[in-house]
Amino acid sequence: MSSDALEELQRLRGSIDNIDAALIHLLAERFKNTQAVGRLKAHASMPPSDPEREAWQIARLRQLAEQADLDPGFAEKFLEFILAEVIQHHEALAADSQ
Amino acid sequence: MSSDALEELQRLRGSIDNIDAALIHLLAERFKNTQAVGRLKAHASMPPSDPEREAWQIARLRQLAEQADLDPGFAEKFLEFILAEVIQHHEALAADSQ
Repeated sequence: MSSDALEELQRLRGSIDNIDAALIHLLAERFKNTQAVGRLKAHASMPPSDPEREAWQIARLRQLAEQADLDPGFAEKFLEFILAEVIQHHEALAADSQ
Repeated sequence: MSSDALEELQRLRGSIDNIDAALIHLLAERFKNTQAVGRLKAHASMPPSDPEREAWQIARLRQLAEQADLDPGFAEKFLEFILAEVIQHHEALAADSQ
């Protein structure tokens, strides 16, 4: 790799690392909100998952992904990955409150 | 669920939806950068994956997660989820350039 290409690689990796730090902080904030949702649901004995809202979330994120030039299939996989973690948290909360 | 709790649930879901829109846009930007990395690597016939950089990224994101009160194990799973997608893109680029 030429020194110009190496410099460009380092520049791109610096941007990726900045974006990753932002993603981690947003995910931390997202889980703070879903934990509060989990507590509300456990208190009201509501089921941890909500298929109707999930279908709405998937459709919305696929549309946002298309607008942002991101593969909508990846956006859907990403949401499913996050929701699987959230459902685990909610189930643990529901078990604790029984 | 009481009407106060329902109102709180809607407020929390509004925040989650805002965060998700931000996450999707950051992921779109991240893939723009990794696609440029993939093109550089394919041009230089470098391997798509870089275990040394990945180990560094995992350690860094685990540390950032701890500081942000996010499960470091989740941060690591998240990075692996993203990297699996990136490696697929890079392999496709490498195959195209052969």
